[in-house]
Amino acid sequence: MPKAMEMLESYPRTFNVDAQLLANAIEALIECGNVCTQCADACLSEEDVRMMVKCIRLDLDCADVCLATSRVISRQTEYDANVTRPVLEACIQVCKSCGDECEHHGHHMEHCRICAESCRRCEQACRELLDAIS
Amino acid sequence: MPKAMEMLESYPRTFNVDAQLLANAIEALIECGNVCTQCADACLSEEDVRMMVKCIRLDLDCADVCLATSRVISRQTEYDANVTRPVLEACIQVCKSCGDECEHHGHHMEHCRICAESCRRCEQACRELLDAIS
Amino acid sequence: MPKAMEMLESYPRTFNVDAQLLANAIEALIECGNVCTQCADACLSEEDVRMMVKCIRLDLDCADVCLATSRVISRQTEYDANVTRPVLEACIQVCKSCGDECEHHGHHMEHCRICAESCRRCEQACRELLDAIS
Amino acid sequence: MPKAMEMLESYPRTFNVDAQLLANAIEALIECGNVCTQCADACLSEEDVRMMVKCIRLDLDCADVCLATSRVISRQTEYDANVTRPVLEACIQVCKSCGDECEHHGHHMEHCRICAESCRRCEQACRELLDAIS
Repeated sequence: MPKAMEMLESYPRTFNVDAQLLANAIEALIECGNVCTQCADACLSEEDVRMMVKCIRLDLDCADVCLATSRVISRQTEYDANVTRPVLEACIQVCKSCGDECEHHGHHMEHCRICAESCRRCEQACRELLDAIS
Repeated sequence: MPKAMEMLESYPRTFNVDAQLLANAIEALIECGNVCTQCADACLSEEDVRMMVKCIRLDLDCADVCLATSRVISRQTEYDANVTRPVLEACIQVCKSCGDECEHHGHHMEHCRICAESCRRCEQACRELLDAIS
Repeated sequence: MPKAMEMLESYPRTFNVDAQLLANAIEALIECGNVCTQCADACLSEEDVRMMVKCIRLDLDCADVCLATSRVISRQTEYDANVTRPVLEACIQVCKSCGDECEHHGHHMEHCRICAESCRRCEQACRELLDAIS
Repeated sequence: MPKAMEMLESYPRTFNVDAQLLANAIEALIECGNVCTQCADACLSEEDVRMMVKCIRLDLDCADVCLATSRVISRQTEYDANVTRPVLEACIQVCKSCGDECEHHGHHMEHCRICAESCRRCEQACRELLDAIS
């Protein structure tokens, strides 16, 4: 069982969202956040780094936004949908932009292919959580 | 001159947003992010910490979201409004929620009074930047 | 295969550290970082939150330091042991302090028991990586 | 008065370190963290980005480590020197490495010149705080 779910099961209060959807989103976000950090670094090491500038920039943004989102949704104490909802919405947009850019490079750069997949999974997991809390 | 503005003036390309509005938002975000971190810690040290639980939670969220937002808007390379806009919108919401909560405690807790002010200034600076890029 | 390892295998240059040790450390760090965020929140929700103040504080520190460390070691481009080494050393200390504190509460709070285990695993994975690069 | 000091003066307990040294370090860290984020971005926009790869990498590391350090030292509740000391030591090293690299480029790139200065100031402020708590 992934740690996010184990931790949710040990939470001392009840919470109003489906624990499985929440754990899926947390796991997808922390994975995507780090994959983006690694992808930005791999892009920096490419021979033709100029071609990768936009990808690096979006990877860095996506890493930062996924991290902040994973932390916000990990907090269930005094849950406030007015905070969670716009943060998830922003994260979905950023994952989409980063996933699109990585996809362009994915056929000849394996790190971008893996990163695009992580962004898509993360976007999807955030969307499912957002639908459940709206 | 604050460092954010000095750095923007040394940026090697042109950018499409008013540099002063951008620098104001960056400075407000990094200040608010750290004031929220300090406020969460001051709340944790209060005699009646149970009364501060909601405030701590929102302070932590606001610190994380302000930080991510400051980084996203600090990046001008390959600027993408589809990324910047939803991130600013989310940050405005979180600053509002955190500012409201801190304001409740502000008349008898100086750290919450200062933090509420930082959240309001940050919300305002983000809103002015958002209006300029929409 | 965990994503950190998949990403390392797609890195366009060679690197001088054992990829498996590096991937283990990255995975342990991102897990521990998020488990600490969740543990701080679960502690905040405990009936007797005053008893948990020290634990919350160390959880927050450990989350921040694990995150920074995961990002620093994920970057292999222009690798510099003078950066990696002190960052790993600091992270080992913080994981130790947080793990010790969580262990005190672990017999009656499941979230602290899980978090203590994550801190121990992370401390160990960072130590193995540090030994390999020293 | 900078906000970090104002917040320290509103802290509900006493603390054992000189408030002015602490506030100086916090302010230097949050400034340096953001200047490094802006410098990485400015480097990415340089015509000859390949020459800036090492600088970008160190800027990103320095931004992450300064941020984590600013948060750790901003927390005075249940202060633990075993946490604060190694984190400050790591940050001093990273600021030194990043400052050295930025200095190389500083005579023909204004963003690197400003960033090197921020790194030096931050290194110095962290060292003064470390000396005071050792």
